Amino acid sequence: MTGSSRSVVQLAVPAGEADPADVVTVLVCSSCRGAGDPDALPRAGSLLVADARRAAGGEGVAVREVACLGNCKRGLSAALFRTGCWAYVFGGLGVGSGDDLVAGARLFTESTDGLLPWRGRPEALKRGLVARIPHPDILKELP
Amino acid sequence: MTGSSRSVVQLAVPAGEADPADVVTVLVCSSCRGAGDPDALPRAGSLLVADARRAAGGEGVAVREVACLGNCKRGLSAALFRTGCWAYVFGGLGVGSGDDLVAGARLFTESTDGLLPWRGRPEALKRGLVARIPHPDILKELP
Repeated sequence: MTGSSRSVVQLAVPAGEADPADVVTVLVCSSCRGAGDPDALPRAGSLLVADARRAAGGEGVAVREVACLGNCKRGLSAALFRTGCWAYVFGGLGVGSGDDLVAGARLFTESTDGLLPWRGRPEALKRGLVARIPHPDILKELP
Repeated sequence: MTGSSRSVVQLAVPAGEADPADVVTVLVCSSCRGAGDPDALPRAGSLLVADARRAAGGEGVAVREVACLGNCKRGLSAALFRTGCWAYVFGGLGVGSGDDLVAGARLFTESTDGLLPWRGRPEALKRGLVARIPHPDILKELP
């Protein structure tokens, strides 16, 4: 990621105007298979959904599930969304990565520039970064 | 990608109601470095921006650039966006992948379920798939 990226980043929706209920969402791919036993049921991705929900504790961070995030070659996957901000996709997660995902989500709430901070990000969300993409409202502002 | 993914997919914004000017966008990472000569300027990503603009020919498909998409370990990168649909991120592209990206964008306009069709997708957009993520409006509908 380059330093120049910051020049095009902005909050499309000021956090103060966003619906608190959807400010930060952890979206977990429920169909991801575990590397050790890919045919196991429930799928490893579903176990990560449950672990993220446990970690969120029902407060401040929404956990949703989907099948799938299209990142099938890179281990268990999840994404972080905050209203008006960039979205982040991570791979290489484990069935016990719920705490890391929720820690990343809470860190995201502190962002003032629409980006997930690097400093303080759990190590799994540094080395596991797969992609980040702009919110559609940010997309319209790009050259 | 699993067959069950279709159960959660829908068009958040019917195509007929979308602004034609932003229905399909190719977003190219301008800061990606070429594998052969990573220090070359202009960066390989910028060359891909230019190639995609050439391929789009100023009609029907918008080409925008950004630094960066966070997919730095997987070659030249770009994403496809259509209003109300899932967004797709691709890696492993080349400086001459503009035609493939624009072909994918035009294919996307034919989608009726918010997904980029697999059939007819250029090979580079099959093997290069890095991730797909839902539009924020779709996100709210997920369990």
